[in-house]
Amino acid sequence: MKLSSLKQGRDGRLVIVSRDLTRATDAFFIVPTLQQALDDWEKVEPRLRDLAEQLEHGSVPSFRFHEHDCASPLPRSYQWADGSAYVNHVELVRKARGAQMPESFWADPLMYQGGSDSFLGPRDPIPALDEAHGIDFEAEIAVITGDVPMGATREDAARAIRLVVLVNDVSLRNLIPAELAKGFGFFQSKPSSTLSPVAVTPDELGEAWDGGRLHLPLLSTLNEKPFGKPNAGVDMTFDFPTLIAHAARTRPLGAGTIIGSGTVSNKDEGGGPGRPISEGGLGYSCLAEQRTVETILHGEPQTSFMRIGDIVRIEMKDGAGHSIFGAIEQEVVPYSQEG
Amino acid sequence: MKLSSLKQGRDGRLVIVSRDLTRATDAFFIVPTLQQALDDWEKVEPRLRDLAEQLEHGSVPSFRFHEHDCASPLPRSYQWADGSAYVNHVELVRKARGAQMPESFWADPLMYQGGSDSFLGPRDPIPALDEAHGIDFEAEIAVITGDVPMGATREDAARAIRLVVLVNDVSLRNLIPAELAKGFGFFQSKPSSTLSPVAVTPDELGEAWDGGRLHLPLLSTLNEKPFGKPNAGVDMTFDFPTLIAHAARTRPLGAGTIIGSGTVSNKDEGGGPGRPISEGGLGYSCLAEQRTVETILHGEPQTSFMRIGDIVRIEMKDGAGHSIFGAIEQEVVPYSQEG
Repeated sequence: MKLSSLKQGRDGRLVIVSRDLTRATDAFFIVPTLQQALDDWEKVEPRLRDLAEQLEHGSVPSFRFHEHDCASPLPRSYQWADGSAYVNHVELVRKARGAQMPESFWADPLMYQGGSDSFLGPRDPIPALDEAHGIDFEAEIAVITGDVPMGATREDAARAIRLVVLVNDVSLRNLIPAELAKGFGFFQSKPSSTLSPVAVTPDELGEAWDGGRLHLPLLSTLNEKPFGKPNAGVDMTFDFPTLIAHAARTRPLGAGTIIGSGTVSNKDEGGGPGRPISEGGLGYSCLAEQRTVETILHGEPQTSFMRIGDIVRIEMKDGAGHSIFGAIEQEVVPYSQEG
Repeated sequence: MKLSSLKQGRDGRLVIVSRDLTRATDAFFIVPTLQQALDDWEKVEPRLRDLAEQLEHGSVPSFRFHEHDCASPLPRSYQWADGSAYVNHVELVRKARGAQMPESFWADPLMYQGGSDSFLGPRDPIPALDEAHGIDFEAEIAVITGDVPMGATREDAARAIRLVVLVNDVSLRNLIPAELAKGFGFFQSKPSSTLSPVAVTPDELGEAWDGGRLHLPLLSTLNEKPFGKPNAGVDMTFDFPTLIAHAARTRPLGAGTIIGSGTVSNKDEGGGPGRPISEGGLGYSCLAEQRTVETILHGEPQTSFMRIGDIVRIEMKDGAGHSIFGAIEQEVVPYSQEG
């Protein structure tokens, strides 16, 4: 089942989207918003699935689905917690700084509490106060959970996964060092993030989903040039149930919690840092990683962060080449409060 | 106007509470939940105020108000961002560790993104997995905002303050050092926090509210013994509009955002670290600060963190000695997943 929230009010209007992303049908007579569906999932899921089947068969009224009409599936949510499951990425970033990554990072997930009250729509521009902030994208996978009790096991956590989405975790790289040095984590360096137009139930992913990881390439393009295609199922040290259980260790997670994978990153075949796509590698899911590899190889970064007018696109395709989640596609624009 | 959310469903049932906290009347025919009221404040506020006036005059049906029937005014919210506005507290804590606090902390607010999806009710127990986690309370003031645009000025921010509440920001002290060392801020070390039974509009605070700070003692008791009574208007380096503007620098804040002051803390009259109430001082708003002062004076802490069965009470009284927000009162109990 594929779900989307069309732009309407603060929480969007829930629609069911056809598997091929061409048609949609209103779900509001079952439940008006995705958050409300997640709040009452056991009851509404079967009815939403019936409707999804009817949509596939063309036996309900439907309309053309346009990704640019979408808000994020949860335009605001009660929790966004982002892991750093691709420890390779973390190790590279530290290496570029000349810092050693603690051994414990391979066993104890890194995770930060993100702002969840204002997700951008998947085709909304990224408003930039200042290019000097070092605007970057981060292509990620995330799961949306039901209620998870405090102290949940990995098995409890796995059962609580309701939906899978893509994320652009927008980051202001040049604000990060000073902010992390203060010791309390990210805040201003993590502006509003973005979710893919469509959220899908895990069964839509077929064999690519093994219950914990999504084994498909995550495609990032920058200004229409391929930038990254690492496989999200590879080098993911902590799977989603592990990340969820980590988040739930000392408190429950409310329905609609979004748990991110962190920037998807694969090692190079030879075991070294990944190479750009133009050099035959799998590329990167954020500019910072490319800059990190450049720093390791050449002593300094050669790629700049995003500038006004730059466009990032994040997408994932199934084995047949069809888009699964629709595409996040965002242009960096100057911010104006009147905007 | 005083508002409360009685326990019902995920978001509580909005009631208006009389100024003296003895009576309440249902507001659901105006708007069912506090979040919905905040989403549409301009429209519903005048109607809620009319109802509040009728309640004071006894001209609407009402019922006895019991604080133990309350959820937190927002049982779940889209954002909880907690500042450390009482820089005195931060300086003390660092001093006890033998660390220097950077000068910039006096000009650039510290703030962390907290979990907002599962606030405890004001009389709910604090579920403890393990006393060895170092369970502590933190008595704080917080404001609840309307929508705040990205890049808001202090003046914009001041106008966006809708409600004031008390907070118990429960902390697991012994998990903090390892978590902060990972560099991404708090997560497991900050379990569910708690808000006071009642949220009040700033006008209810009279002259004690100057638009940015609340000039009244914040009263904490531990096992019925007075523990802290620092004045929340004193030594608050950053006022609420400054904290809100800090949070909104690179992204908008959604209606219902809760911005905390951090642990309220006053310097001693002599300018040194505060003394316990039993020694004629103003005491502390968390155990960590008392332990910190003990460490500075005696080389090691002498007070233990909270144990199973310990009860913390947090309250604020007006000039006439009447409770303004009702009391947070929580006992530490062993956690069991079966509840």
